[in-house]
Amino acid sequence: MTRAEFSAELQALGAKIREKRSVAGLSQEGLADACGLDRTYVGGVERGERNLGFVNLLRIAKALEVDPSDLLTGIRAGSGE
Amino acid sequence: MTRAEFSAELQALGAKIREKRSVAGLSQEGLADACGLDRTYVGGVERGERNLGFVNLLRIAKALEVDPSDLLTGIRAGSGE
Repeated sequence: MTRAEFSAELQALGAKIREKRSVAGLSQEGLADACGLDRTYVGGVERGERNLGFVNLLRIAKALEVDPSDLLTGIRAGSGE
Repeated sequence: MTRAEFSAELQALGAKIREKRSVAGLSQEGLADACGLDRTYVGGVERGERNLGFVNLLRIAKALEVDPSDLLTGIRAGSGE
């Protein structure tokens, strides 16, 4: 239910993380290592399949050297409903 | 460890949610009801004691009628370290 409810937003977040990772010149594995996360977890986040916790969002933002709010730009809760 | 690592950021997020809830004229219980969350959970989020998931952040933003990124404005990952 959760996934269905906000799947568009989760996918938008994942796409933004992928974009910023690409700009940073990091592989999924490189980002995962920098965050202390598993590569498959990072892959799931980028595909919008993971409801990541705020702390992991902070870890990813820190590794990508962006502000956490930059990863949410343009995402509106429930706009797709 | 997680809490210690980003406790300042979690507290900043909680304070921002509390501020926006106040502007919206909602009690903790009113916000919790609007989100389908427990009041004690919302209280824990506002005190920075909960590492909330992205979907719950979206639920809260939707109930407060703000963009999710607005709740993260000014929060920088690891700035307090």
